[in-house]
Amino acid sequence: MASIFTKIINREIPAYIIAEDENHIAFLDVFPLVKGHVLVVPKKEVDYIFDLEDEQYASLHMFAKKVAHAVKEAMPCLRVGEAVIGLEVPHVHIHLIPMQVMDDMNFSRPKLKLSEEEFEDARNKIVEAYEKL
Amino acid sequence: MASIFTKIINREIPAYIIAEDENHIAFLDVFPLVKGHVLVVPKKEVDYIFDLEDEQYASLHMFAKKVAHAVKEAMPCLRVGEAVIGLEVPHVHIHLIPMQVMDDMNFSRPKLKLSEEEFEDARNKIVEAYEKL
Repeated sequence: MASIFTKIINREIPAYIIAEDENHIAFLDVFPLVKGHVLVVPKKEVDYIFDLEDEQYASLHMFAKKVAHAVKEAMPCLRVGEAVIGLEVPHVHIHLIPMQVMDDMNFSRPKLKLSEEEFEDARNKIVEAYEKL
Repeated sequence: MASIFTKIINREIPAYIIAEDENHIAFLDVFPLVKGHVLVVPKKEVDYIFDLEDEQYASLHMFAKKVAHAVKEAMPCLRVGEAVIGLEVPHVHIHLIPMQVMDDMNFSRPKLKLSEEEFEDARNKIVEAYEKL
């Protein structure tokens, strides 16, 4: 069965998409730790990041690097943190989190509830920054 | 002033070293979240991971991928998680964490206190797995 991320890639379910190329996509996490929390996903549905072939693995990270620069520009933060856990959705995803404090990357804390307007605001700001890179 | 990681690279302070090449080093985190928690560090002292040049950034991740395979082989875990926070030591480091549950990557929880024997045991197991890759 297609993962929820593959359904986003195929436009079967909606998402706040930030950027996309032939092999990767980035969109807002709908269960964010902070506003502007982005997921970077390879289009190929692989479960475990370290099972990606070297070239896919490197190009995913290069794509994430560019998105991270946009997140840093767009959202108030000291820097953008990066995390890969992979115990939930079985489709590789890199979390990019605009961080002010260490606890902004605490996946055990309750997720934020943002309004549609707040998601759209974050998406628009990050897309604008991405397009200027 | 040299970072604590540069001092490890220069053998000015000791560490449980896992692997090393011309541009990178991996060693056990002395404040681990779980046994077998490894830091992967570029020898060049750069503060923010997304400031690394593309080639350095990609090669650091490739080095981390190999170390992650060794950690996965050596330590009991479902998979190895990856995190970059960067709000403490101002020298890029990727955390590799052998994870059983999501909370194994909770940097806000108290760090483990391991004995010298436990550190050596983790180091020896990961080095052995690394050398077999």
